[in-house]
Amino acid sequence: MKVKNKIILAMDLTQQEAAMQVLTDITGEIDTIKIGYPLVLSQGLQSITTIKENFKYKVIADFKVADIPETNRKIADLTFSAGADAVIVHGFVGQDSVQACQQSAKEYGKDIFLLTEMSHPGAEQFIQDVSLDIALMGVNLGINNFVAPSTRLDRLEKIRKIVGDDSFIISPGVGEQGGNPAQTLKYADALIIGRSIYTAKYPQQALQSIIDSIKF
Amino acid sequence: MKVKNKIILAMDLTQQEAAMQVLTDITGEIDTIKIGYPLVLSQGLQSITTIKENFKYKVIADFKVADIPETNRKIADLTFSAGADAVIVHGFVGQDSVQACQQSAKEYGKDIFLLTEMSHPGAEQFIQDVSLDIALMGVNLGINNFVAPSTRLDRLEKIRKIVGDDSFIISPGVGEQGGNPAQTLKYADALIIGRSIYTAKYPQQALQSIIDSIKF
Repeated sequence: MKVKNKIILAMDLTQQEAAMQVLTDITGEIDTIKIGYPLVLSQGLQSITTIKENFKYKVIADFKVADIPETNRKIADLTFSAGADAVIVHGFVGQDSVQACQQSAKEYGKDIFLLTEMSHPGAEQFIQDVSLDIALMGVNLGINNFVAPSTRLDRLEKIRKIVGDDSFIISPGVGEQGGNPAQTLKYADALIIGRSIYTAKYPQQALQSIIDSIKF
Repeated sequence: MKVKNKIILAMDLTQQEAAMQVLTDITGEIDTIKIGYPLVLSQGLQSITTIKENFKYKVIADFKVADIPETNRKIADLTFSAGADAVIVHGFVGQDSVQACQQSAKEYGKDIFLLTEMSHPGAEQFIQDVSLDIALMGVNLGINNFVAPSTRLDRLEKIRKIVGDDSFIISPGVGEQGGNPAQTLKYADALIIGRSIYTAKYPQQALQSIIDSIKF
């Protein structure tokens, strides 16, 4: 996956109109957005379809899919049918559940991102112990898109070593959660940034200043 | 939570009309259903509202919520607002993420179920190593509703010992996945059964024969 200006907007607003306004404001600056359950539960899965019909953004559905294989498959099928270009899948639930999403992506000609380690404090409790194993599982499954945290650069660096330079890593936690954009991009290919942009009075300016800060 | 006849229907159909027909067929036999993303992504979160308006079922939203605290909170708020009586939350994402849902439930006067271990083969890969710790975390957080698998009775028994006899355990995996109803109810308070009922030609008869089989 290619991501313009190395930034993915995490669109976690719950109102379609407000979301569409932000997407209009930043048109041309970036080409990839991440949509999660806050918007989809508020507005329905068709909110993704509506965005795909009105803009040229690639859409990553951040559903952190974490169910048994049969249900993962149904979730991935529905998500790709609605127009999403990729879906984020938890690795913690095991290989069979991940493969169910992988199979769906293959049939729809779409992608999956494997979530290795998360950006919040609670990730240290159970996930961190196995996140490198999850990354390795992903490599063995032939996955080349991963999610890894900007809030723990030592972990991000380790995950990069496991998945290799040819894999694509997107990284949440920059901005409100404290991750540093330029430092994160030493190991990640693109930053996921949400509140710093969509809650700004002038989203386009907020985005532009982040883009400027990572041009080095 | 009380569950009539110790059975919860997992309503994983994707068509609202078909779902409503099954719910009509089995009216009176059970009083609790579990709704997951297959139906909600197909029909919107209002599918839960519609069911609550037309029937007297308690609705457990099986969203296996597994995000950072801020997003977990948004998901739980939206789910309870739509009328769900409880939401299922993954424990492996850590205490802060679980507490975000717990806080939402408290404010809405609703419940959460903590998912400890899952019923599919992939659960042995990462989750099983920490599922007892997840159960213990739940006890320490004051949670008294848990999900634990019928496909591994030894694990279910251990989880029951940790959460105590006063906690309420619901158990998936009976039926298509191979779990035994009567054996599971030695340790669990209610069974979650889906495909064996909703794919049956006569759902009410299929349900009745399961109810008969666990009367001992």
